[in-house]
Amino acid sequence: MQNQIFKKHEVGVFALGGLGEVGKNMYVVEYQNEIVIIDAGVMFPDDSLLGIDYVIPDYTYLQKNQDKIKALVITHGHEDHIGGIPWLLRHVKIPKIYANGIAVGLIKNKMQEHSGVKYDLYEFFENDIIRFKHLAVSFFRTNHSIPDSFGIVVKTPQGKIVHTGDFKFDFTPTGKDADYAKMARLGSEGVLCLLSDSTGAEVDAFTKSESTVSESIKEIFSNIEGRAVVATFASNIHRVQQIIEASIATKRKIAVFGRSMERTVEVGQELGYIKAPHGTFVGARALRHFSPHEITILCTGSQGEPFAALSRIANGTHRQIKVQPKDTVIFSSSPIPGNQGGINKTINQLFKRGANVITHSPLSDTHTSGHGGSEELKLMLKLIKPKYFMPIHGEYRMLKIHARTAIACGVKKGNEFVLDNGDVLALTSKSARVAGSVPAENIYIDGKGIGDIGSIVLKDRKILSEDGLLNIVVTINEKERRVVGNSVIVSRGFVYMKEQTELTKALSNQVDNHVNEILQKYDTIKTGLIKRDVIRLLNDYIYTKTERNPMILPVVKTI
Amino acid sequence: MQNQIFKKHEVGVFALGGLGEVGKNMYVVEYQNEIVIIDAGVMFPDDSLLGIDYVIPDYTYLQKNQDKIKALVITHGHEDHIGGIPWLLRHVKIPKIYANGIAVGLIKNKMQEHSGVKYDLYEFFENDIIRFKHLAVSFFRTNHSIPDSFGIVVKTPQGKIVHTGDFKFDFTPTGKDADYAKMARLGSEGVLCLLSDSTGAEVDAFTKSESTVSESIKEIFSNIEGRAVVATFASNIHRVQQIIEASIATKRKIAVFGRSMERTVEVGQELGYIKAPHGTFVGARALRHFSPHEITILCTGSQGEPFAALSRIANGTHRQIKVQPKDTVIFSSSPIPGNQGGINKTINQLFKRGANVITHSPLSDTHTSGHGGSEELKLMLKLIKPKYFMPIHGEYRMLKIHARTAIACGVKKGNEFVLDNGDVLALTSKSARVAGSVPAENIYIDGKGIGDIGSIVLKDRKILSEDGLLNIVVTINEKERRVVGNSVIVSRGFVYMKEQTELTKALSNQVDNHVNEILQKYDTIKTGLIKRDVIRLLNDYIYTKTERNPMILPVVKTI
Repeated sequence: MQNQIFKKHEVGVFALGGLGEVGKNMYVVEYQNEIVIIDAGVMFPDDSLLGIDYVIPDYTYLQKNQDKIKALVITHGHEDHIGGIPWLLRHVKIPKIYANGIAVGLIKNKMQEHSGVKYDLYEFFENDIIRFKHLAVSFFRTNHSIPDSFGIVVKTPQGKIVHTGDFKFDFTPTGKDADYAKMARLGSEGVLCLLSDSTGAEVDAFTKSESTVSESIKEIFSNIEGRAVVATFASNIHRVQQIIEASIATKRKIAVFGRSMERTVEVGQELGYIKAPHGTFVGARALRHFSPHEITILCTGSQGEPFAALSRIANGTHRQIKVQPKDTVIFSSSPIPGNQGGINKTINQLFKRGANVITHSPLSDTHTSGHGGSEELKLMLKLIKPKYFMPIHGEYRMLKIHARTAIACGVKKGNEFVLDNGDVLALTSKSARVAGSVPAENIYIDGKGIGDIGSIVLKDRKILSEDGLLNIVVTINEKERRVVGNSVIVSRGFVYMKEQTELTKALSNQVDNHVNEILQKYDTIKTGLIKRDVIRLLNDYIYTKTERNPMILPVVKTI
Repeated sequence: MQNQIFKKHEVGVFALGGLGEVGKNMYVVEYQNEIVIIDAGVMFPDDSLLGIDYVIPDYTYLQKNQDKIKALVITHGHEDHIGGIPWLLRHVKIPKIYANGIAVGLIKNKMQEHSGVKYDLYEFFENDIIRFKHLAVSFFRTNHSIPDSFGIVVKTPQGKIVHTGDFKFDFTPTGKDADYAKMARLGSEGVLCLLSDSTGAEVDAFTKSESTVSESIKEIFSNIEGRAVVATFASNIHRVQQIIEASIATKRKIAVFGRSMERTVEVGQELGYIKAPHGTFVGARALRHFSPHEITILCTGSQGEPFAALSRIANGTHRQIKVQPKDTVIFSSSPIPGNQGGINKTINQLFKRGANVITHSPLSDTHTSGHGGSEELKLMLKLIKPKYFMPIHGEYRMLKIHARTAIACGVKKGNEFVLDNGDVLALTSKSARVAGSVPAENIYIDGKGIGDIGSIVLKDRKILSEDGLLNIVVTINEKERRVVGNSVIVSRGFVYMKEQTELTKALSNQVDNHVNEILQKYDTIKTGLIKRDVIRLLNDYIYTKTERNPMILPVVKTI
């Protein structure tokens, strides 16, 4: 069945996640009866989404067009590109998932935690072409902060759609080179539309090479007298290898802490990304056999996550590692927006326990971004030379700035499309238009529940978090038409009730008298009316006394 | 009565707020029967303090030693230095408050909102000496991001205690010069102990002059085709004057939005800090008589505060100002840690409505800090040349780094004291020791309540915010020893109950059966036991079904 949004000869391109946000990346290319999905990510909730574990895209459109789906192809193994796979598979039948290298391992790992969910995962290789009836998918290697990152080309009868994935350009990478030739060839042959990573669009620079960081870490290591404690992103396997090499160069043994870091080192060694002579790694118990200057502690916690290894070391609750004098803690990372508070807390605790702390700064290059700055985005535009341009991966201002960059680099004004999730770009070889939109709201996951937390529940959580609640139970004797005993008042998060017996008594008396009056006034017991009146009465009384607005939760029971 | 902490001939110096944190600054200098208090600030709560409006110091020590208090002296008019005054005055009798210039106006303004509270406020002048029996207080002018900022000298029989207040060094200030001569003279004559602002201790630089920002803003203004919309801190009166001058230079009329900004312009004009020819300011209604390039909109909201003028302009709810094409919004500010999320949201909304946005960056100097960087801290140390050093105003790492800086600048190792709030430094002309501590916990203000929100209530709010609550009311007939009717279950912030009738029924049945069993088992009705069992039963059942842990609030009523 032809969809209602774009025409039969048009190619539809849209995002279910990743536009106007950093996270839950998911892009769809559709032509006639074929759909190719690029990536299936999750997003981690911001502070306003109280109690939410993950956010995923709305899969409704894919459910309804299930028969068209040919494949899900994965650009690389970060959570915002693969984390949604288990949730997607619960809702939508995906015939084949294609991924490469480390992403394959990470997806398998993830699926083990969702043992009931079936999946068909294939490894693609760099020069593969996956052909369907109308569409064909191919790949080009890029640089990013995880190995095996690829751009995706979807060839359609109207022209090629190129999706960069996350990328930077690193001319002296610690892993493989990006495939400049393939990108240039795509550009020469003609690209209909480029979807390009905008995360670094505001950064007015060419990002530093991973090799620079490597040099800098080695220099820092050579000046540390005591133990070197290094926290970084577990997924940044190249970085982990740099830290291992710096340790070997300065004759340090390495102890690894934090589950995801332990897994990185294990998987990285299996796949050959992590190389270290036998005996480089030691267990926690063996550390006492070495002097402080012979030890590197490699751990998770670079974002101040409360239960990560470094946070537990900092707050003194780590079972195996206590801060020692002359310990130097290196954050080989940069703060993700929103995490600065937690990171500062960790740093303060580390200082308080006597450690020295080095963070990424112009003076100490302990990190570089995996996302290209404006100069790299320009290079991509110059190589690919697209007719139409759709900035992806980023908050609105990043997309907007990237669109300006594209125009400066030769995309014709009017051919750039800064879209929202769900907006459908309908393309032919000669035209592009926003044809309509598909559902693309946020779906919240809290525990086992998918999508059962809506705005009402979140609003309630917000009120509860600010002023707590007051629960009042009124029992009414139906025959005698009067309140039985005294109303019971319980509160949580409001004031400490044991110290407020007077307030509770006053509230309870007021409610009982008022409810008895209502019971006299009407022939039937109007529970709804009683509840409303109790809420109003308590709201007014409590606000006057305390200037607070706890949630009032009345229970009226007739016996 | 002599206190129990330090000896009669010693001078006690301690902080009730401001160490290990940025905010609620309050320092005490005590000698025999005399106490001088320096500043009385509030702190704005971080995200973990759910629903708290302000944090103030614990005033217990001052209450107990009320008779000794001679004066409260104020360094400058920022909230983290004067915001605690009304709360302090409710607990402690303060014979005299001394402040200068704009701080006097701001304190008067603040006290109008607390009309029941009496206070005696005096203006000190730059060269005043306020003498008590043993102590004498004098002042030296500094540079900071609000006019009339001073350092405080407390002369004691053991030597001089110097407190810098917040400061930077600005050799080309837009207001008055700092009093270098006085600082140098203090140093030559001998200073026993320096308490110095550490906020900028990590910044490895000399901060830029306010004049640089002024030049930069003028240049930006001259390139703006449409309206210039500028958001900055209302208290930064010099900055406001720079923006006014840039507007006049580019022939723009100025409309002011946001209550605190309106007050700044009003008070600033009265006191002569803000100078503009008649007709420079126009009301919102008059704007339609001018072209966009003839208009500056000066407003609050530089920190993304949800209800500030700029935020309302950005989200489209401002009654008078709608974003127009070619509007350029300038953030003449830098993000306070924790506010980046709100600021990003505002910027994205502004872009979405078609505005251009300029934030402070190396390429556009729209802001400079009011706190000196490491080079300025060194200059202060070199001028004052203290024997002992106590870094103040800052998180622990800032204090620690500042202490290192002091040693590098000539303070003898061992003479630096990185302390916590409440720690008492006992000084004589020849010695310094940490003698003990006074109570200095955080006191939370929520609505009208001072200190009635403790850790239990905050913990409850945290649980409520993440998983909501489930309230279950069990009514027991005492004579018949059985549950009356069905237990009533109500929830908030958990799942949307109207869609979950099955879950509620199942829970209610389980509870009723279980409670009836307990009632059969014992001779008396054990309410505590029933509650505990109900909580355990529901916790287990709900976690298995939903992987959530709502707060269970059981009410057992016997009739």
